[in-house]
Amino acid sequence: MRAVDIISKKRHGEALSREEINFFIEGFVNGSIPDYQASALLMAVCCNGMDSWETVDLTLAMANSGDKVDLSRISGIKVDKHSTGGVGDTTTLITAPLVAACGVPVAKMSGRGLGHTGGTLDKLESIPGFKTDLSMEEFINAVESIGLAVIGQSKDLVPADKLLYELRDVTGTVDNIPLIASSIMSKKIASGSDAIVLDVKAGSGAFMRSVNDSFLLADAMVKIGVRAGRDVMAVITDMDQPLGMAVGNALEVKEAVEVLKNKRQGPLKHISIYLAANMLLTAKACSSLDEGLIMTSEALESGRGLNKLGEMIQRQGGDRDVLDDFSLLPGAEHIIPVKADAEGYISSIDAEKIGLCSLLTGAGRSKKEDDIDHAAGLIMHKRVGDPVHEGDILAELHINKLDMFEEASQMLRSGIHIRSARPKLKPLVMGMVTKHGIKRFDSEEQPI
Amino acid sequence: MRAVDIISKKRHGEALSREEINFFIEGFVNGSIPDYQASALLMAVCCNGMDSWETVDLTLAMANSGDKVDLSRISGIKVDKHSTGGVGDTTTLITAPLVAACGVPVAKMSGRGLGHTGGTLDKLESIPGFKTDLSMEEFINAVESIGLAVIGQSKDLVPADKLLYELRDVTGTVDNIPLIASSIMSKKIASGSDAIVLDVKAGSGAFMRSVNDSFLLADAMVKIGVRAGRDVMAVITDMDQPLGMAVGNALEVKEAVEVLKNKRQGPLKHISIYLAANMLLTAKACSSLDEGLIMTSEALESGRGLNKLGEMIQRQGGDRDVLDDFSLLPGAEHIIPVKADAEGYISSIDAEKIGLCSLLTGAGRSKKEDDIDHAAGLIMHKRVGDPVHEGDILAELHINKLDMFEEASQMLRSGIHIRSARPKLKPLVMGMVTKHGIKRFDSEEQPI
Repeated sequence: MRAVDIISKKRHGEALSREEINFFIEGFVNGSIPDYQASALLMAVCCNGMDSWETVDLTLAMANSGDKVDLSRISGIKVDKHSTGGVGDTTTLITAPLVAACGVPVAKMSGRGLGHTGGTLDKLESIPGFKTDLSMEEFINAVESIGLAVIGQSKDLVPADKLLYELRDVTGTVDNIPLIASSIMSKKIASGSDAIVLDVKAGSGAFMRSVNDSFLLADAMVKIGVRAGRDVMAVITDMDQPLGMAVGNALEVKEAVEVLKNKRQGPLKHISIYLAANMLLTAKACSSLDEGLIMTSEALESGRGLNKLGEMIQRQGGDRDVLDDFSLLPGAEHIIPVKADAEGYISSIDAEKIGLCSLLTGAGRSKKEDDIDHAAGLIMHKRVGDPVHEGDILAELHINKLDMFEEASQMLRSGIHIRSARPKLKPLVMGMVTKHGIKRFDSEEQPI
Repeated sequence: MRAVDIISKKRHGEALSREEINFFIEGFVNGSIPDYQASALLMAVCCNGMDSWETVDLTLAMANSGDKVDLSRISGIKVDKHSTGGVGDTTTLITAPLVAACGVPVAKMSGRGLGHTGGTLDKLESIPGFKTDLSMEEFINAVESIGLAVIGQSKDLVPADKLLYELRDVTGTVDNIPLIASSIMSKKIASGSDAIVLDVKAGSGAFMRSVNDSFLLADAMVKIGVRAGRDVMAVITDMDQPLGMAVGNALEVKEAVEVLKNKRQGPLKHISIYLAANMLLTAKACSSLDEGLIMTSEALESGRGLNKLGEMIQRQGGDRDVLDDFSLLPGAEHIIPVKADAEGYISSIDAEKIGLCSLLTGAGRSKKEDDIDHAAGLIMHKRVGDPVHEGDILAELHINKLDMFEEASQMLRSGIHIRSARPKLKPLVMGMVTKHGIKRFDSEEQPI
């Protein structure tokens, strides 16, 4: 078997066999197939596609390229959740404790943020003392003991994905559904959970801007999961404006805690409960979504979710007192409001620009090596559809680097549009994908 | 400007600007754009194509990537010929002396053979003492003095082509018309001739197997040449069987000499005279093809062509006596006939297999580093359409490595097909492409 023949085959639009895909991924990871052959194959895949069997084979070849997490010591069905990433998306900090509080173990490996989206690890690390680098033994022990742990992805998990992603990033081959789906699912499969709920975001702050592409990506990922023997489903949710009001690491931790204290209503709470209910259903801990919604709401309202988050913080070396005293979390030196200079309704919010504003305050990373300012970020005061008067606060920036304020506030303003007409609101959940197929929801049939 | 944006643009089927193409080629040659980005762009070009303006821009960017030959010291219109390569294609050794004998200077830079096609340099180097590595000064002096010189391509000519070709060879991006056309034409343009005649081969022994692709390649190359300010035309000729009867280096030299002595008729002579006449016409040394055919036939029949070849051999350090004494050329230790084991007509000859047989005798190179056996090769005794009886000699192998005979003769047999029905003969010249467009010839309207 020769790499060049495999590339030629894909160039001419033919499907690759499992043996060919395994040969290529193994060779790429062990260095016998050089970068320039891999990038040619990636481009041929972008131009000519991959069918769903090829995508499954690619995903499994990637998942098998390094260590795999063995969660079998933990009894019960282990459930994982993955979001394709958005702005103000703090759902993991809410759903994971809620699901664990309902008795379903959550052993989650998470990533760091790059670009405008902050990663769950970055958010957790804003809690003083919190450790995300547990050993595998400590990680499994924690889940066995309290039902919940969130750690960083080990370096030896899916090395093929790291290598391929670095290459895709510089060869114009990032935005391709089979490649995105196999990248995400290879990590989920190698992470060892039995059941997986995928939250695929669609809109201006999401990786997939088009709703249709989001459904296609969700469908590709669900097909991979099912063929790899996992219980998997996906929901497609709106990311045309930030999900929560807070964008930034410590700020998002505070908002998540307030949701778990039942002090905050709105989309972040709704989506978190909806995702948690779907996780329970996928893990067979309830027999219907309605039952799952009741279970998770009850875990939230009773404070059992908040308590579970506290247990996790304590177990992973963090200061549990942050839950009751936010002053223990990092705070920014300057909190500066950005005010409306027009009157009307918020007609749209460009979530990407809000994310870029947060990046400018110091809350994100432009490059992998960049340091993050855990205190920085912003709190939105308005959502799409809200009425607004001149001088109303649109958002407040939390910032330590005052010299970035001007640029950050301009970026924020460029992302918030005010019109005189009241806009039509979009549904929060656009649909779902299960092994039975695709279901789209319109505004009237929202599941939450 | 970023390489990744240029790759993305081509990936999405957009045309690249001249500035983008120049940026990419310059960066690739100076090493600031790595192989893996270049191979991704090459694959995107293979999948999404390049329009004729992009192809011209790519060709000129490549031609400008290194040294360019300045032939302005030589008076008159300098004419070059290029063949896309075939088996038993010895036309350069015949046409170049004929054209020079008609008073049109030929300053030719040639390549070495790789695979089953032997290069003109390899053939000339089978003449004892012949030097192909003249300095640029010696090369131009030779053309000024005797009107003809053939040397190897300097290493500093079109470095972009060398680098791109090496990458294409291992990334499945060889067979693409814009890339082939720009590779050939960049070298022709950098070589400095004013007029260029392209001989595009079609058939089993050619790079382009389909006649239609050959026309497309010819059209792409003529468009490039015209836009680069050269007088250029192409002929499309048959390569479904070897053009001459000899395949191998010294063997082809002998056949070329015999054609120039007017001792051999047949396709090699016809095509050589036809190409030479087109070279005269393109260089404006005659006013019609008919006039050119008369001039070149007269140069051949009078022996002036042979004499010009002798002058060139002498000027480049070779032993001119080889023209009259073939025993001065390398000869193989063994000459072994391969005989027919059936009766009928030669229905087809797979030129590629004949080429591979010649490679097995030692006459070609599998890898660039391989040594060539100048004496080795084969002489065909039959052409398509010839009647054949059991025991007739199909070809004789000239071989020094006896242990390769079995494999070589099997390869030869597998390429010669005998059927009881007399086959329909194909035309030798399938058509031509000029700046005025494409003209196809059928069997009845052959120009020679």
